[in-house]
Amino acid sequence: MTQIYDRVALIGLGLIASSMFWAIKRSGLAGEVTGYARSEATRDTARRIGLCDRVCDTAKEAVEGADLVVLCVPVGAMGAVAADIASALKPGATVTDVGSVKRHVIQAVSPHIPEGVHFIPAHPLAGTEHSGPDSGFAELFDNRWCLLVPVEGSDPDAIARLRALWEGMGSNVDEMDADHHDLVLAVTSHAPHLIAYTMVGVADDLRRVTDSEVIKYSAAGFRDFTRIAASDPTMWRDVFLTNKDATLEILGRFTEELFALQRAIRTGDGEHLFDYFTRTRAIRRGIIDAGQDTDAPDFGRGKANP
Amino acid sequence: MTQIYDRVALIGLGLIASSMFWAIKRSGLAGEVTGYARSEATRDTARRIGLCDRVCDTAKEAVEGADLVVLCVPVGAMGAVAADIASALKPGATVTDVGSVKRHVIQAVSPHIPEGVHFIPAHPLAGTEHSGPDSGFAELFDNRWCLLVPVEGSDPDAIARLRALWEGMGSNVDEMDADHHDLVLAVTSHAPHLIAYTMVGVADDLRRVTDSEVIKYSAAGFRDFTRIAASDPTMWRDVFLTNKDATLEILGRFTEELFALQRAIRTGDGEHLFDYFTRTRAIRRGIIDAGQDTDAPDFGRGKANP
Repeated sequence: MTQIYDRVALIGLGLIASSMFWAIKRSGLAGEVTGYARSEATRDTARRIGLCDRVCDTAKEAVEGADLVVLCVPVGAMGAVAADIASALKPGATVTDVGSVKRHVIQAVSPHIPEGVHFIPAHPLAGTEHSGPDSGFAELFDNRWCLLVPVEGSDPDAIARLRALWEGMGSNVDEMDADHHDLVLAVTSHAPHLIAYTMVGVADDLRRVTDSEVIKYSAAGFRDFTRIAASDPTMWRDVFLTNKDATLEILGRFTEELFALQRAIRTGDGEHLFDYFTRTRAIRRGIIDAGQDTDAPDFGRGKANP
Repeated sequence: MTQIYDRVALIGLGLIASSMFWAIKRSGLAGEVTGYARSEATRDTARRIGLCDRVCDTAKEAVEGADLVVLCVPVGAMGAVAADIASALKPGATVTDVGSVKRHVIQAVSPHIPEGVHFIPAHPLAGTEHSGPDSGFAELFDNRWCLLVPVEGSDPDAIARLRALWEGMGSNVDEMDADHHDLVLAVTSHAPHLIAYTMVGVADDLRRVTDSEVIKYSAAGFRDFTRIAASDPTMWRDVFLTNKDATLEILGRFTEELFALQRAIRTGDGEHLFDYFTRTRAIRRGIIDAGQDTDAPDFGRGKANP
């Protein structure tokens, strides 16, 4: 594949940045990739495993001369990082990010972007429950969506180039405005994560059901929740604090529906339950047809089997 | 493997019964397996795909001469089926079931069991989101738990024989009393299912987030919920109606916790969120250590990739 940028700088070296590095290398999408992480231990790990062509001890050093700077830190840290690197950004460079929330990142980062530098927020919808510099792999973005969220005045050529990078890393790319992005993600990701965290916490609290039983019998449905609830705590704290309104709105709707189903259970309204469960089945069908999962039986089994 | 029963009768021919048939055949655990389903279409499918050595047109005919009768119908239908077959049961035979709720099944089935017939309730913790006679496969129970719930006066030899059958089908076997079973399953299975159904229903309701967006971007967390929420509506309606108290108790605890987390989001209490998410991560570790899932990164990806 063609080289798209001469130099890419990755700021923050967790799951997404490390996967980007390996995906960029897989297809030769950049001449040099520099990297920076705040923690010395992370920088040491990166150097040891060959993550990034050059690991720098300051963010400023990493972004010097870069055509593309990717902010891969938790959403709550984006503003401070942008302020730190602003004076070192090359004229004509593009700054992008990979945060799960877009309105807040735009508000936090935009004021620091110098004249002549392009800012194009982005969000790859890909991840695992693992985190850290050694959790990345080149295939993470294959067949996954990356949403670009251009701001007012974003340069069409800079957008096209960033799109080409994500496509080169295996993603499908869509564009969306920030508020719509934050609502869609509240439904498909943020609310489900909070719900999974909650259910796992409840199980942990119950003294009559011992830990070992919850774990032993997890395949009955609970297991999928624990996978979601094992995601990075810092990242998710920041997501909820910065996409507060949309998340709370969806959780409000969720609670309303849950109360209606609880009432149906209490009053023995089997028809209500049956109709509801029949309707939700159709959505699953749509996801399989859209190629975002397979029809192979998995639930309650998974890869634990030989 | 040694043959454990001369004749096994499967009443109801859905996912569990069809998987039992293939698992019994895989290891030669029974001489003959008969089958019965209420619907003629299901019986036709069973005959066409070779499910059961003999498919019968009545439940009574299927259980005649059987050493083991397995009730594989939805929990709400167990009582009526037991009443129907009672007079045809062979003296010394064992009746068991595979229902997800045990207290209710014992109350519904026990009164119909004749003197000299053993009743040993059971529950294999295995399933997929698929249902029907052609959804079964021999490996469904491999490395999964099956819980035996003996009632007062259950014959130890009959229990040992049923345990041997489940172990022969690949399961690990534990014993538990009915009330504890129903509480453990409310935590690990019933409440998570209702929560997943609810979240998928909410997504379906939201008009501003179109169906196609919810489906397209499902890999961000929502996808695991849709798999759970695609499970058989009749089966799950019956589970909630018959394990009402334990399910409502766990849902009450869930709502309480969810409100506390919602308040933390609203007030910006990041420390509360971070601590909670850190605690839930440990449970996931326990599940992997217990061999009920693997550490391979999957969330947000799955088998949709090439």
